[in-house]
Amino acid sequence: MKILVLHGPNLNLLGKREPDNYGSATLEEINRGLSLVAEKSGVELEIFQSNSESELVDKIQQAVENFDGILINPAAYTHTSIALRDAVLAVNKPCVEVHLSNIHSREDFRAKSYLADVCAGQICGFGQDSYFLGLQALINLLKNKL
Amino acid sequence: MKILVLHGPNLNLLGKREPDNYGSATLEEINRGLSLVAEKSGVELEIFQSNSESELVDKIQQAVENFDGILINPAAYTHTSIALRDAVLAVNKPCVEVHLSNIHSREDFRAKSYLADVCAGQICGFGQDSYFLGLQALINLLKNKL
Amino acid sequence: MKILVLHGPNLNLLGKREPDNYGSATLEEINRGLSLVAEKSGVELEIFQSNSESELVDKIQQAVENFDGILINPAAYTHTSIALRDAVLAVNKPCVEVHLSNIHSREDFRAKSYLADVCAGQICGFGQDSYFLGLQALINLLKNKL
Amino acid sequence: MKILVLHGPNLNLLGKREPDNYGSATLEEINRGLSLVAEKSGVELEIFQSNSESELVDKIQQAVENFDGILINPAAYTHTSIALRDAVLAVNKPCVEVHLSNIHSREDFRAKSYLADVCAGQICGFGQDSYFLGLQALINLLKNKL
Amino acid sequence: MKILVLHGPNLNLLGKREPDNYGSATLEEINRGLSLVAEKSGVELEIFQSNSESELVDKIQQAVENFDGILINPAAYTHTSIALRDAVLAVNKPCVEVHLSNIHSREDFRAKSYLADVCAGQICGFGQDSYFLGLQALINLLKNKL
Amino acid sequence: MKILVLHGPNLNLLGKREPDNYGSATLEEINRGLSLVAEKSGVELEIFQSNSESELVDKIQQAVENFDGILINPAAYTHTSIALRDAVLAVNKPCVEVHLSNIHSREDFRAKSYLADVCAGQICGFGQDSYFLGLQALINLLKNKL
Amino acid sequence: MKILVLHGPNLNLLGKREPDNYGSATLEEINRGLSLVAEKSGVELEIFQSNSESELVDKIQQAVENFDGILINPAAYTHTSIALRDAVLAVNKPCVEVHLSNIHSREDFRAKSYLADVCAGQICGFGQDSYFLGLQALINLLKNKL
Amino acid sequence: MKILVLHGPNLNLLGKREPDNYGSATLEEINRGLSLVAEKSGVELEIFQSNSESELVDKIQQAVENFDGILINPAAYTHTSIALRDAVLAVNKPCVEVHLSNIHSREDFRAKSYLADVCAGQICGFGQDSYFLGLQALINLLKNKL
Amino acid sequence: MKILVLHGPNLNLLGKREPDNYGSATLEEINRGLSLVAEKSGVELEIFQSNSESELVDKIQQAVENFDGILINPAAYTHTSIALRDAVLAVNKPCVEVHLSNIHSREDFRAKSYLADVCAGQICGFGQDSYFLGLQALINLLKNKL
Amino acid sequence: MKILVLHGPNLNLLGKREPDNYGSATLEEINRGLSLVAEKSGVELEIFQSNSESELVDKIQQAVENFDGILINPAAYTHTSIALRDAVLAVNKPCVEVHLSNIHSREDFRAKSYLADVCAGQICGFGQDSYFLGLQALINLLKNKL
Amino acid sequence: MKILVLHGPNLNLLGKREPDNYGSATLEEINRGLSLVAEKSGVELEIFQSNSESELVDKIQQAVENFDGILINPAAYTHTSIALRDAVLAVNKPCVEVHLSNIHSREDFRAKSYLADVCAGQICGFGQDSYFLGLQALINLLKNKL
Amino acid sequence: MKILVLHGPNLNLLGKREPDNYGSATLEEINRGLSLVAEKSGVELEIFQSNSESELVDKIQQAVENFDGILINPAAYTHTSIALRDAVLAVNKPCVEVHLSNIHSREDFRAKSYLADVCAGQICGFGQDSYFLGLQALINLLKNKL
Repeated sequence: MKILVLHGPNLNLLGKREPDNYGSATLEEINRGLSLVAEKSGVELEIFQSNSESELVDKIQQAVENFDGILINPAAYTHTSIALRDAVLAVNKPCVEVHLSNIHSREDFRAKSYLADVCAGQICGFGQDSYFLGLQALINLLKNKL
Repeated sequence: MKILVLHGPNLNLLGKREPDNYGSATLEEINRGLSLVAEKSGVELEIFQSNSESELVDKIQQAVENFDGILINPAAYTHTSIALRDAVLAVNKPCVEVHLSNIHSREDFRAKSYLADVCAGQICGFGQDSYFLGLQALINLLKNKL
Repeated sequence: MKILVLHGPNLNLLGKREPDNYGSATLEEINRGLSLVAEKSGVELEIFQSNSESELVDKIQQAVENFDGILINPAAYTHTSIALRDAVLAVNKPCVEVHLSNIHSREDFRAKSYLADVCAGQICGFGQDSYFLGLQALINLLKNKL
Repeated sequence: MKILVLHGPNLNLLGKREPDNYGSATLEEINRGLSLVAEKSGVELEIFQSNSESELVDKIQQAVENFDGILINPAAYTHTSIALRDAVLAVNKPCVEVHLSNIHSREDFRAKSYLADVCAGQICGFGQDSYFLGLQALINLLKNKL
Repeated sequence: MKILVLHGPNLNLLGKREPDNYGSATLEEINRGLSLVAEKSGVELEIFQSNSESELVDKIQQAVENFDGILINPAAYTHTSIALRDAVLAVNKPCVEVHLSNIHSREDFRAKSYLADVCAGQICGFGQDSYFLGLQALINLLKNKL
Repeated sequence: MKILVLHGPNLNLLGKREPDNYGSATLEEINRGLSLVAEKSGVELEIFQSNSESELVDKIQQAVENFDGILINPAAYTHTSIALRDAVLAVNKPCVEVHLSNIHSREDFRAKSYLADVCAGQICGFGQDSYFLGLQALINLLKNKL
Repeated sequence: MKILVLHGPNLNLLGKREPDNYGSATLEEINRGLSLVAEKSGVELEIFQSNSESELVDKIQQAVENFDGILINPAAYTHTSIALRDAVLAVNKPCVEVHLSNIHSREDFRAKSYLADVCAGQICGFGQDSYFLGLQALINLLKNKL
Repeated sequence: MKILVLHGPNLNLLGKREPDNYGSATLEEINRGLSLVAEKSGVELEIFQSNSESELVDKIQQAVENFDGILINPAAYTHTSIALRDAVLAVNKPCVEVHLSNIHSREDFRAKSYLADVCAGQICGFGQDSYFLGLQALINLLKNKL
Repeated sequence: MKILVLHGPNLNLLGKREPDNYGSATLEEINRGLSLVAEKSGVELEIFQSNSESELVDKIQQAVENFDGILINPAAYTHTSIALRDAVLAVNKPCVEVHLSNIHSREDFRAKSYLADVCAGQICGFGQDSYFLGLQALINLLKNKL
Repeated sequence: MKILVLHGPNLNLLGKREPDNYGSATLEEINRGLSLVAEKSGVELEIFQSNSESELVDKIQQAVENFDGILINPAAYTHTSIALRDAVLAVNKPCVEVHLSNIHSREDFRAKSYLADVCAGQICGFGQDSYFLGLQALINLLKNKL
Repeated sequence: MKILVLHGPNLNLLGKREPDNYGSATLEEINRGLSLVAEKSGVELEIFQSNSESELVDKIQQAVENFDGILINPAAYTHTSIALRDAVLAVNKPCVEVHLSNIHSREDFRAKSYLADVCAGQICGFGQDSYFLGLQALINLLKNKL
Repeated sequence: MKILVLHGPNLNLLGKREPDNYGSATLEEINRGLSLVAEKSGVELEIFQSNSESELVDKIQQAVENFDGILINPAAYTHTSIALRDAVLAVNKPCVEVHLSNIHSREDFRAKSYLADVCAGQICGFGQDSYFLGLQALINLLKNKL
């Protein structure tokens, strides 16, 4: 079982950026945590961060052949990218959307997601734990399908 | 550590009701699963289901003195109850909102939650797994506070 | 054939309350009229009035095993209760929604019904006759299914 | 007592057209059913179908002198015709609006009616039975006035 | 100078219909009044009433060759007919829109006109006087052009 | 019979200001035209222009005792002044609203009037002729009342 | 003279709950204050708090026979309960709505009240003083009626 | 293969009417062009123009038995006629919607079509070429079905 | 302690103007009543009425140095004046907003207040009593601050 | 004559991706079809697909000097990219927008196009035929300009 | 070259009023700074502050003959005054709109300006520097015109 | 002091592109002008143009360590990019937003900026002068902080 983990724009700044909203963990720390979760379940991860909408689209497209599921924090693109939505629809693999912060307690426009209804589920508000829970949710989902 | 688990209206019908939206697990099976998660973490649970908005409000109010956190699936009251919101605000304990179905891929009015922005976080779409992940998220949250 | 008749909040005041909107018949008179209609068709009725959303939800849930159809005047809950909607969806029995007054010629918020699209049909504006026509409609519906 | 029955646009196709929404009865069968209901109550009917908004307006205008009440299924014109509304207002005779399908469970624009608040009441969702119940409602209404 | 006067749907009922909104003058009386105004200015009138949107469109189209201007009370079609708007745009003759009642003090939907911004001006609220003032306005307009 | 004529803000610039929208007549020319119309009907006029909302309110208040009716071009205050509306409601004298330009063919916010529904009627789009027709309409209205 | 005082959901927590929004007075202290005001005017009070919408509806219904007026802080139900509105409409007794906090300086949804337009008046923002002023207002109102 | 070509209201004025929006070709020229396209593909055409919504509805209804597909320029009725939509739904034949002008670069209300989502596709903005391309599209569609 | 009392536009007409909405008390009677309330509490009043938004702004600005609090009935400016709002924000003194009529049971635009959320509280619907209660509320507020 | 053909994001997956919405043709097959159309008209094509908004912008900018017109399927960027709109405005060459699926019968947000009103025309709903018809439309357009 | 500088309502309180939003500079200090900027460019200034909408309108009207351009901080009137907008349109002189605070990071209603689209440009957020930059922008604009 | 200057999509075409909206200056000329302004103040500039949202995000991220402030013309991304907004929030350096054209006098969607409320201020409408004034504003801002 192989899972693609995608981090959207500005997540490379994690730890430095607005700790009130996003916590103090760096992206490296989150990635290490994800690897631990994956290892325990015997799952292989590929992790990719990009500030570019199209690079994220390109990566999702590879899931057609290379991945069983996708864990994605689309960050700002959550609210603006129909291209990411279409990519998820196109590859037709289970996808889980996660957010570090509680998107419902911030600006109004952050409550709307172009991805949420084409993903299996959504987890938000638990800091880095959103990622670990999301990965676990995805692994459970894929195992139930077998 | 003691956690209050609340199931909102119509969840007593789980397993019989609209399996396409809510899965085939009964509420008893979910409660057993929650107890297993709690046990592993040495956490005590009190579980309560009600179709009554005011009974749920009453129960949340008890959290001021008796509970460290709340795991809640407000079901239909998610979208209509400001009384539940006010109760959560009043008791001021960490609260996690969970949903069996993906509330973003159903009727428009299910995307709006009166509780989401006063909870720590929200998990939806993973069937009974939403509960187990939500309980885990809440336990982690409470432990980090210690 | 057994049918559940539900009267929503404030309908216990019928006859005293706003005769311009609701007519001068009391709830007892309406219930007697309903029994006559039922008798003629050899149908058994259970009639229940409550001001409580949750008691109405509880009652609808009993329809899973005890009733073939539901005749409901949800009154004020028509416009605010997703819990009633979910109960109707859950028990999956033919349901007919009736209103004494013409909900389209009153305040704007009365035109919106959370139940209408999950019921078989809706009848409004004919005073107590709305109930009698609604019961007849439901009986016909159930007989056509046999 | 004389009642005008009006069928709006495309209802001449009934039976052939979208049976999922409109049932399999033809307009002739509905008209026969209406005549039976009328006969039982000693009421005279005039029945008229047209795809033309203005012909329907013309016909309603005749109710000033020739009819005691109007039973109307305005079909598509329900949602777009203020001319029909004005005609009903002008003739000032009791009017009952019926729909074969449940207009609340279809496209959003079908929930809005320009006629509903100037009619006595509205019945929808019961297939041809909507007509029979509507005619009965109108007869009762007229008899109560005597 | 030749002017086309158009009366929209239900105006044939004037005098009988809702005197509170429309006054007690009949259409014939209004037409006689219009003829008097026209005569005084040496203007020829053709007057036409129809309940049919398309007959009104047909008539407006004749203005290309036969009329110098149009005085129109589009009645209900004011708020629903883009076909009338397009006809006015197509014939490109000065057009004046009049209403018997004050369209701003009735239902919300009566405030919106599909014709107003493609007419020279609009007069409403003065009963039959709206017509006489409107005809005068149109004659003045045409004379200023000469 | 005594009529108050009110010109709202910026109308003192007439003739110089945006001739495309407002024509080339000056306010003095319009006032002379109004006096001619009044004279013919044996009506006395008081004419007042102000850029100040409160001076216009003050003036309208004097109508309680000194005037039989009001002719007003509220200009910009049409769309923003509830104080003018309240003054018109308070003095309870027939009021006619006029506009030089066609307010329906300009910015969206010009279509909304806080005065229209509390005036007898509204005339717009005929340049200075709007005033003359409006005065005539008001005189007719007052004479019909006698 | 007998007045019913109703406290809505979560007001039993007063003093402990969000002192920034609701002040530090407990419900008991407010009730004592209300009794003092009532005593001074020789008015009898019955005071009732409930988290249940239907219990509040039940209580209002008793006002038909047992009370001359109602003082109500509907709390969260202000914004969601048409059932309370209908009860107030049904019993047809003077009703005064009060709020501890300024509902206009909080979340948007708190500015809308389903009760305000069917009450005599509304008082908000003065902490427990809102109650005392509201009771005084209601007593004055009832005395003026005598 | 037989195709019905429908031209909506005011299209009989083509060539004379607003050449900036609609081009200088007359309806006859367009019809000749359509016949050429049809001939090349061995397809038979029936062409019909009407300013009347109901005549267009009547004509569409004939497609049940007499035509394989419909090419329609609904003109103004595009944005206002649910009756045309219902007729297209009822006959259940492939339908192509065309517009001479670019409906997206004109008034806002022209962007909304009641027909677009029940047609196979939509072509707009290419003047008479919209018709020729639309006919070709429809022929291809019908041939692919064989 | 010195309090500024401000009466907005058209309140000088009180007693004559729309008694159904505003009662029969004149402004002088209200002012006398306010003086009585003030005297009892040993508070000094300055009372000012104006139809001018800017005069009201000027007066509020004087509160920086001369007054401890403001009692204001902004009347029509409630719904349109951000300048008054800014003045209240600028002087930063406790302000109480009162209305004679129930602003929630009139035109929709009267429910919105630009001042409410920057005032301490709002009282409406009690006729002249709104003023007396509002003054009492303000005095209590200022005394609690000492 | 040289035409730029642009395929937007995810169109590289054509044939594999959601055949219900997009058909079974691959992008290569569509490109071959386009070349055939171009050849017949003696037109040169350059074809470019990208998932990147900025690469599409870059390419459009080259049209200033290298191309006579643009055929574009902006896919997901249709609904979100003002940068593409600005590029089309900047290069000021005839542009035709095409879509494989009928954008009016899918999610609401797909009906809105940031490009449609700055293109010559739009074609949607005919699968790969949308491209061939669009290219033909563009060629005709360019030839008419010569 | 002569420039009119206008300060809107409440700006006379600058320095005392909400320093977080408006900075600590007084209006006199800003005016001195403006004079320095003007002097450097050999431009004459007239500076005027008023809390009165009509005085500001009056002043703008004088620009027809006495000024080459206008620098205006309309303050609260930015969002409510169409009279100011019309005055700017009428005098037809270059106008620059400035704001001390960032109007986009405050209440929603402050983002809308009735003046912005009829001014040359807008500057906001730089405290008193907004004025100096705005004056410089206006001078440059006027010099480029020479 | 080092400042990052960012030019968004399509600004590389300046001078050629829509001179009515954007003026005739090329980007090179603007950059030379910016360098002159910077030199005068002893400030170092880095200037970067890109059509790519992600390259602009990447560049802004470098401001954490390398720049004291940012001058940005986000062009089309102003209205669509939350990723740019998040980058500005993340680096937490003073940012000034500039636009060549007056964004308030163009399409509605250009009035909304995702950046404006997280920037210090916004300048628009002065052509290339917007840049020079914006740079000056930013330099002043940074100097005041020292």
